[in-house]
Amino acid sequence: MGGKKVFHKLKSLDEAKAKLFNSFKEKVKIPLEAELISVKKALDRITAEAVFAKFSSPYFYSSAMDGYAVRAKDTFNATEREPLRLKMGRDAHWIETGDPLPKGFDAVIPLEDVNTKDGFIEIYFSVPPYHNVRPIGEDIVATELIIPESHQVRPVDIGAMLASGILEIKVRKKPIIGIIPTGSELVDIENLREKNLQPPELIESNSSVLSGLIYKSGAEPKVYSIVKDKKEDIKKAILEATKECDLVLINAGSGYGKEDLTYKVINEIGKILINGVAIKPGKPFIAGFINNKPIFGIPGYPVSSFLCFSLFVKPIIELYLSVSPSEEEQLNAILSRQISSNIGVNEFVRVKVGRIGEKYIVTPMGRGAGLLMSVVRADGLIVIPKGSEGYSKGTEVTVHLWRTKKEIDNTVVFIGSHDNTIDILYNFLRKAYPNISLSSAHVGSMGGIVAIKKDEAHIAGTHLLDEASGEYNVPFIKRLIPEKKVSLINLVYRIQGLIVKKGNPKNIKGFEDLIRDDVFFINRQTGSGTRLLLDKHLRELSISPSLIKGYDQEEYTHMGVASAVLTGRADVGLGILSSAQALGLDFIPVAEERYDLLIPNEFMELPIIQAVLKVIREDQEFRKVVSSLGGYVLRDMGKIVYESS
Amino acid sequence: MGGKKVFHKLKSLDEAKAKLFNSFKEKVKIPLEAELISVKKALDRITAEAVFAKFSSPYFYSSAMDGYAVRAKDTFNATEREPLRLKMGRDAHWIETGDPLPKGFDAVIPLEDVNTKDGFIEIYFSVPPYHNVRPIGEDIVATELIIPESHQVRPVDIGAMLASGILEIKVRKKPIIGIIPTGSELVDIENLREKNLQPPELIESNSSVLSGLIYKSGAEPKVYSIVKDKKEDIKKAILEATKECDLVLINAGSGYGKEDLTYKVINEIGKILINGVAIKPGKPFIAGFINNKPIFGIPGYPVSSFLCFSLFVKPIIELYLSVSPSEEEQLNAILSRQISSNIGVNEFVRVKVGRIGEKYIVTPMGRGAGLLMSVVRADGLIVIPKGSEGYSKGTEVTVHLWRTKKEIDNTVVFIGSHDNTIDILYNFLRKAYPNISLSSAHVGSMGGIVAIKKDEAHIAGTHLLDEASGEYNVPFIKRLIPEKKVSLINLVYRIQGLIVKKGNPKNIKGFEDLIRDDVFFINRQTGSGTRLLLDKHLRELSISPSLIKGYDQEEYTHMGVASAVLTGRADVGLGILSSAQALGLDFIPVAEERYDLLIPNEFMELPIIQAVLKVIREDQEFRKVVSSLGGYVLRDMGKIVYESS
Repeated sequence: MGGKKVFHKLKSLDEAKAKLFNSFKEKVKIPLEAELISVKKALDRITAEAVFAKFSSPYFYSSAMDGYAVRAKDTFNATEREPLRLKMGRDAHWIETGDPLPKGFDAVIPLEDVNTKDGFIEIYFSVPPYHNVRPIGEDIVATELIIPESHQVRPVDIGAMLASGILEIKVRKKPIIGIIPTGSELVDIENLREKNLQPPELIESNSSVLSGLIYKSGAEPKVYSIVKDKKEDIKKAILEATKECDLVLINAGSGYGKEDLTYKVINEIGKILINGVAIKPGKPFIAGFINNKPIFGIPGYPVSSFLCFSLFVKPIIELYLSVSPSEEEQLNAILSRQISSNIGVNEFVRVKVGRIGEKYIVTPMGRGAGLLMSVVRADGLIVIPKGSEGYSKGTEVTVHLWRTKKEIDNTVVFIGSHDNTIDILYNFLRKAYPNISLSSAHVGSMGGIVAIKKDEAHIAGTHLLDEASGEYNVPFIKRLIPEKKVSLINLVYRIQGLIVKKGNPKNIKGFEDLIRDDVFFINRQTGSGTRLLLDKHLRELSISPSLIKGYDQEEYTHMGVASAVLTGRADVGLGILSSAQALGLDFIPVAEERYDLLIPNEFMELPIIQAVLKVIREDQEFRKVVSSLGGYVLRDMGKIVYESS
Repeated sequence: MGGKKVFHKLKSLDEAKAKLFNSFKEKVKIPLEAELISVKKALDRITAEAVFAKFSSPYFYSSAMDGYAVRAKDTFNATEREPLRLKMGRDAHWIETGDPLPKGFDAVIPLEDVNTKDGFIEIYFSVPPYHNVRPIGEDIVATELIIPESHQVRPVDIGAMLASGILEIKVRKKPIIGIIPTGSELVDIENLREKNLQPPELIESNSSVLSGLIYKSGAEPKVYSIVKDKKEDIKKAILEATKECDLVLINAGSGYGKEDLTYKVINEIGKILINGVAIKPGKPFIAGFINNKPIFGIPGYPVSSFLCFSLFVKPIIELYLSVSPSEEEQLNAILSRQISSNIGVNEFVRVKVGRIGEKYIVTPMGRGAGLLMSVVRADGLIVIPKGSEGYSKGTEVTVHLWRTKKEIDNTVVFIGSHDNTIDILYNFLRKAYPNISLSSAHVGSMGGIVAIKKDEAHIAGTHLLDEASGEYNVPFIKRLIPEKKVSLINLVYRIQGLIVKKGNPKNIKGFEDLIRDDVFFINRQTGSGTRLLLDKHLRELSISPSLIKGYDQEEYTHMGVASAVLTGRADVGLGILSSAQALGLDFIPVAEERYDLLIPNEFMELPIIQAVLKVIREDQEFRKVVSSLGGYVLRDMGKIVYESS
């Protein structure tokens, strides 16, 4: 049984940073000592002192042309009318570009300006000294500054250093950042080749993320083996790491519920500086010193770990290297929905950004600290300061971009109903147009149409059945967005059916079985096309939803439904064949439905939209892959099924 | 004796690119085949296929809190008034964040919401199923897309792949780019440890620059040993490299005057596609194919080599990897001087960019293809298209930036007279403020004042002696820029003197010796303070400049003068002690002069200018280093010597 960690008076982010970085500068000698390395191996390293040229380049007078080296004084009085003849080998020498001038010679006459005859050259004009001669030091003068201190070495810098005779330079030592993953339930994926996971085992992945981030920041990651949640083991690992590294990160197993071993150990053998910070995610961050070596307790949730790296680890690496803090590109964008936050906490929200027409629209993503995919899929971050309760829809906010503005400009914003073919489409799109991205948010068919209405998306995926007319999508478009000129393009017809466990152990045959006592259902969210389809069938069969156990349990994707069935949370759900197949479940077909793409006409000619349509209409390989998923009918793929007049 | 290379009908850049890239796409299979690598080693690689999740994450229902796992149905009817008691071990289990729910349990009540007593917990409200439970697949659902094809793997992507059970992925093979340096005069710097260079030896540096550029573009450089200018040797090297590499670069020795061996060899064993392109620099670029492997002849001048990489090699690497072409950030800026170019040629001009007030000012740098330092020091590139004869002063041009806009914003633009202390100042500035840069252009004192007048610089370095008043700088400021409010801050007094060869072999004692028949002088350019000083002394001594041999030979820096003396181009020049010392020359002091920094008052409060002043006024280490150079007097360093009223 563990205790509960209590954060007394959390430090604000600013207080925590000030305390940490001031204390760091007091206790630690920065920058780290320099090391002497070969110039040829110095790419991307930071210079520890200025580099001055050893030799001039060129270090001798050399010809700037192909031609004849002469003495300028010998050429006086040469004219077109009265050419001068200079004896080859005595008064003139053949010389090529870059060759040194023979001793006593000081000018070059280009090849094309002379005639050669009988061992003589005939010249038609005089030249001044150093004509067509590359002076010594034209490029680099010995002793001049090549690159300053604290400069990150680029390929051209290496060239200039070598050309000026520099063989070795002093660069800042890379700080070694130790990473100790802790948690009795963690397993290294390398040990998984032969077996599957068994709860509570978790694959340890934070150390690889941290390691990559450290490497990209110019430091040297050192990953230690996973340590069990035992105080003595943790103490031993920390003591070893603080000896070998310049900064040590202990990464908690999972969340901060584990006995607070990191805190206890640092407190015992060192000094705690910070115990919790008023940020979200990342609150349980700990910092301390052991023998003047900084040590951080990094929370275990992957997003917290990622964020604590940016806020605390990267700046420490920059201090060790004494380089200026790097910053992300920023962009102002309009919030597509309201976002709330707690007073007193700096909250970091991952967002998607899309350019719709001339506006940049920013949409907050899932905010759980466990949602690593929200980092993978995000375009950047917005920060809600501790004094704010959040922002209302339409507020202009500053996004710290993780992708370039250009990449954002080349991103198709897809919102609406989820279908597996959208992932496939994205992939084929990227194959053909590697510079185009597709960002998809799954909010159901109705949510997609609303996004189009509000100019928040380029494309909405929709499969809404109008019960009165039996028609798909069009009645909804006419009713919901009569003001918009749009086109509706068919992507697929798809088979919806009941997803049940492998072998259908509960022998479910149709909607009638959903009211059975021993059957637990999993539903899709209100506003999704699948939910409408279900309700239509229930009404036709006069089945009251209140009789269905689990009707009020909602999932947001087909895969979510399939996953609920797979894991036993439900016995049955309504969804598409591909989801059932993906998880090895059985499938009872109940209906074919039309899944269309809704696109405002104003976007139809955008190159990114044309690219999407080209893949849908012309890419045979794409069709083949979609067909092979099963459960799809492609007879109208790419056809315009409706266009508003 | 070599022949002269003639470029018949050069291809335009567009034609050359079209021909090259179309031919490449015809002959070469792209992308390169994929290779399977460990996810942990995949950082920065390009995915060769989309990656889909193997496991869900989390893959079991787990607690989102520290507390007690319960069955939701057991909690119905619990209220504050009528709490329910659940037996520990049977109806309730202690559970920590991340732990799997025990079989049959489906909700978690947080620790702080219960009382424990005698093996029971007392609860005060009911909870619905899955309350405080992290659902399966909350982060990642098995089979969902993690990252698409053609995606460069980031640290977080590695985390998500590992968390979803992916151990290995297919990435695009890195193309291997061979680099063959050729040239009988080239030496590897590694062989130089013991000896100095002897003309015509040149240090081979292009292969290191190309190698770094190739590496940074995501390909694998392979540098071959230097090959002498012998046809058979070159042929052998090319045949070997085309077997081992995906693209081969042959780098000419120096310039294109060498016998045209690259052309001949490719023509003999393969097919020439391009022989010269109408670009400057880079004209002698050659491209061809040998056994369907592309092979490029890269010109030998370092700037040409650098530019040909950007124009031809990088795009080929991007084709091999099938990624979208990367592009530099662009910035519009105002040309500070007129720049001319030849019709019919795309010219690429390295430039410095400075932000002066709200304007960005762009200044062309030295344009020689041999000036690698122009690339090292440049902030970017402007392109003069083939249809243009150049641009007039004040034209707005597009700069392709090599540094970020932010770095440009943090750059102090220094123009004026050259002094070695400016390099030292830059270095100490950077030590204290690693995010501030200093860009210096040496155009003489007068040029500096003119730059201030035209708002092209923050600081001008000046040491102009007014003969009439005997006063430094102030009379010129009053006369030349009466309209500007400026401050004049002393940097140093410096000793000017005659720089002569070691041991003073010509026994030069003073200005009187300059008219001797056996003495050759090297001068500074018109408008430089040193030139004014010379002219003053000559007038005082009634020496006519026309009697001085070399009076019309000009150098632009003190080091240029010293270098001319060192190499025997001149016997004597006027300059500062530090330059003489740097090259081991002798020095005959003739005068002390005041070297000031001229700064418009409007810039005085800028953080970058305040930083400069702080170093000058407070950094004792800086003073020590300047003193140690010799020839400087620091009595007024940092003092305001004049301020316009």
